[in-house]
Amino acid sequence: MTFIDLNSDLGEGFGRWTLGDDAEMLGIVTSANIACGFHAGDPLVIRQTVLGARDAGVAIGAHVGYRDLAGFGRRNMDVSSAELVADVIYQIGALQGVARAAGTSVTYVKPHGALYNTIVHDERQARDVVTAITEIDPTLAVLGLPGSAVLRLADAAGLRAVTEAFADRAYTPAGTLVSRREAGSVLHDPELVADRMVQLATEGTLTAIDGSLISVDADSICVHGDSPGATGMARHVRSALTRAGIDVSAFAPRPGEIHAGQ
Amino acid sequence: MTFIDLNSDLGEGFGRWTLGDDAEMLGIVTSANIACGFHAGDPLVIRQTVLGARDAGVAIGAHVGYRDLAGFGRRNMDVSSAELVADVIYQIGALQGVARAAGTSVTYVKPHGALYNTIVHDERQARDVVTAITEIDPTLAVLGLPGSAVLRLADAAGLRAVTEAFADRAYTPAGTLVSRREAGSVLHDPELVADRMVQLATEGTLTAIDGSLISVDADSICVHGDSPGATGMARHVRSALTRAGIDVSAFAPRPGEIHAGQ
Amino acid sequence: MTFIDLNSDLGEGFGRWTLGDDAEMLGIVTSANIACGFHAGDPLVIRQTVLGARDAGVAIGAHVGYRDLAGFGRRNMDVSSAELVADVIYQIGALQGVARAAGTSVTYVKPHGALYNTIVHDERQARDVVTAITEIDPTLAVLGLPGSAVLRLADAAGLRAVTEAFADRAYTPAGTLVSRREAGSVLHDPELVADRMVQLATEGTLTAIDGSLISVDADSICVHGDSPGATGMARHVRSALTRAGIDVSAFAPRPGEIHAGQ
Amino acid sequence: MTFIDLNSDLGEGFGRWTLGDDAEMLGIVTSANIACGFHAGDPLVIRQTVLGARDAGVAIGAHVGYRDLAGFGRRNMDVSSAELVADVIYQIGALQGVARAAGTSVTYVKPHGALYNTIVHDERQARDVVTAITEIDPTLAVLGLPGSAVLRLADAAGLRAVTEAFADRAYTPAGTLVSRREAGSVLHDPELVADRMVQLATEGTLTAIDGSLISVDADSICVHGDSPGATGMARHVRSALTRAGIDVSAFAPRPGEIHAGQ
Repeated sequence: MTFIDLNSDLGEGFGRWTLGDDAEMLGIVTSANIACGFHAGDPLVIRQTVLGARDAGVAIGAHVGYRDLAGFGRRNMDVSSAELVADVIYQIGALQGVARAAGTSVTYVKPHGALYNTIVHDERQARDVVTAITEIDPTLAVLGLPGSAVLRLADAAGLRAVTEAFADRAYTPAGTLVSRREAGSVLHDPELVADRMVQLATEGTLTAIDGSLISVDADSICVHGDSPGATGMARHVRSALTRAGIDVSAFAPRPGEIHAGQ
Repeated sequence: MTFIDLNSDLGEGFGRWTLGDDAEMLGIVTSANIACGFHAGDPLVIRQTVLGARDAGVAIGAHVGYRDLAGFGRRNMDVSSAELVADVIYQIGALQGVARAAGTSVTYVKPHGALYNTIVHDERQARDVVTAITEIDPTLAVLGLPGSAVLRLADAAGLRAVTEAFADRAYTPAGTLVSRREAGSVLHDPELVADRMVQLATEGTLTAIDGSLISVDADSICVHGDSPGATGMARHVRSALTRAGIDVSAFAPRPGEIHAGQ
Repeated sequence: MTFIDLNSDLGEGFGRWTLGDDAEMLGIVTSANIACGFHAGDPLVIRQTVLGARDAGVAIGAHVGYRDLAGFGRRNMDVSSAELVADVIYQIGALQGVARAAGTSVTYVKPHGALYNTIVHDERQARDVVTAITEIDPTLAVLGLPGSAVLRLADAAGLRAVTEAFADRAYTPAGTLVSRREAGSVLHDPELVADRMVQLATEGTLTAIDGSLISVDADSICVHGDSPGATGMARHVRSALTRAGIDVSAFAPRPGEIHAGQ
Repeated sequence: MTFIDLNSDLGEGFGRWTLGDDAEMLGIVTSANIACGFHAGDPLVIRQTVLGARDAGVAIGAHVGYRDLAGFGRRNMDVSSAELVADVIYQIGALQGVARAAGTSVTYVKPHGALYNTIVHDERQARDVVTAITEIDPTLAVLGLPGSAVLRLADAAGLRAVTEAFADRAYTPAGTLVSRREAGSVLHDPELVADRMVQLATEGTLTAIDGSLISVDADSICVHGDSPGATGMARHVRSALTRAGIDVSAFAPRPGEIHAGQ
């Protein structure tokens, strides 16, 4: 039987501000990338999201980012290695604490925004993230882009490297994401997206933007929940996968299956 | 033989800014109250302070405060229970993560500034702090003022409640601190302060501001390090205690003596 | 002919987060209380809101608050006078700068959230706000609650004090707002609210929660825009006032009618 | 007679934290680059520094930076043009407000840290800074590195472009600063530095690190005050300039000589 995970970014409110429909998404996804307070997420919203994930049986990941609330962690920042290692440890530790207080645990790390994009190529920052995870808890998996520097270095360091595809994004013939600046880079048709994800899960392939068939390695599918249409698309993807007989389940242990050492 | 702990607030820099001579103080005290990022302490300075405490064999406490960097956590804030519980859990968790990454652990919690003062009397906020600690790790001790609401509630909740006295402060005949607004509230003579602390450790008494002898319950003595004179006074206190044959050691397990569950 | 102003809180997004439908509200109100960055509002959202207000011919007010982004300025904070005076001057100055860059100007100040409520009664903080306004620009009007300490002190200091009523709130027989904790404190029927506001504008009276008729002094009506229903209610109020022959216009000069000294 | 300005970064404390001896430096320099709250400087410290500059007859400049308190504005950030224009306008406006409240005015802008370095070469960000200044107040001068993109674009936009040299830095034969990563890049001998600055002010030349004589265009000399030795060096430079008969005075109008439009 085929397995696949569905992950989404959650807990991205801050104080008075909310973002996305977390309650809705917790009924759809199997892994929740929860903001840790640096790009989004105050302690209360983080705690509420952790409690929701625990109750929904959704795996909890640390969605670590640059310290940039005003830019939502989407702006490249030239942080030193000492800063980045400490920042990542601090964020993971904070989320682990909130999870522990809720009787559950964090099982993976997914970098966010500009940090996510940077460590696809930037070896130094990728190594810093891997160092931080290794130091705080080497049982944590790392979720990222196939072929990225961070997954390669994570694997070399003995961490579990988990790959993901993006449900609503077009791919180049080379298997990379089509830049958001180009036409057709973002897919809006829920049926088309759902069909593509079934093909990905069952065949390991996707149709690239030029019509060619490419191989895509993905243990997890990233879906978005920060707009009404997005939750609908996520639900479509989940339903289509289930109808196709695919087991949609977390790649990492779910809350309640806490590993030793937490 | 008589035991007493010496504690001090450390890790209170932020980015470009430093405060106090942490390296110096780590050679004097036995317990380090380390800022957790809300009133002071960025992840890098927190990490460096944790590493220093570990290497010096100094116990590590979470110095949790209100989220008020501009006010250094010294301004009363009317936070809700849900916010305060989450804020305290988040801060403890972050410091625990940094400690775990350094191969050591947090063994106690000491609230900071306005939060410290508020939960001497405010039952609701005191209960919130106790709830947070109980949820994240009930093996953590709580360091506070003798007779405070927070220590009473901590004890009732099964947490270890640890009392402290302030080396450089005058006491009223009722055993409370003389307000900083009153003359003579802060003591500046290192010899006098050292003598008082020896008396406190050996007799459990202090001379109040009116000359009367009062009983003071203190498992730990708080010394300050954020001015050159302050480190000198801290050193005087430590030396006098040692000369008097008192065992100056942490009330909580030191790094390396990590308790189960961390 | 009778005049009344309609004011609303705008520019309350921050970075990735939006709040309310500012574009919609700028077509309804005559005065925009624009967040200044301390409780909400990053420079870009502030600038966009100022440009929108300028283009819509809506008067611009500085919506100053406590420095508490996580609490949206709704938590009481015990700030010193020196801090509060400086914080208010800084916020007004920043908004004036953004307005000046847009070829328009700030014409009034409306404190926000916990600060607004505190300076209804707290003479010290009320005086600090008045001092700040007087120092930076004594031509700025102050918008607040009738009978509040801040309006009394503003008037005494030679500032223009402008009163407001809340469209969707019930009033006590004594003319104060019914606490949000009590049943019936918030009104939800747009027709009823619109009728009440017409009565207020034409008669200077409102029906209190016990059915008695009370006098209410209001130069402006505060309407909310941070929920879909709220914009509908605001539109109802505006339409009803216009139909009743009331001139809905800003109490303060609108952009383009810049006073000397800006 | 020869004129030269002495500028320094001031007001770089934040809340509990202080940096440098501002009072001392205000007795030495003629222009104060005052932090505006984004890399350093809370409203109270900004206000106190503005009042000090006013009383000392020192010109006030807006020391604008990236929004990065934890990194002290020293980390490159990939901000968009819309964000950067708004951020710079906001910071200048805030400082202008504080200055206006103190009966004085801001007369120039000096970008800080990573922003300063970026706009030496980055045309896009340099243009954004010039746009911001032009929009908020085209009478403001811009202080920067000779040959920098920002000064060239400022001049082209009709702003007054003012050049500066760094007292304690070695220069390459090409007239650029020797990188801090290279040996000998920072000069520590107060006498040598003072002699170099006299030569700069009188001859317009400096001896480069290879011993060659180079022309350096500088209307102002930047001295540092954030260490005890630094204030001593600044005092040496000032004394040597005065002894050499050079008029040390602000390039921009000093407080009290407020230009129209403020």
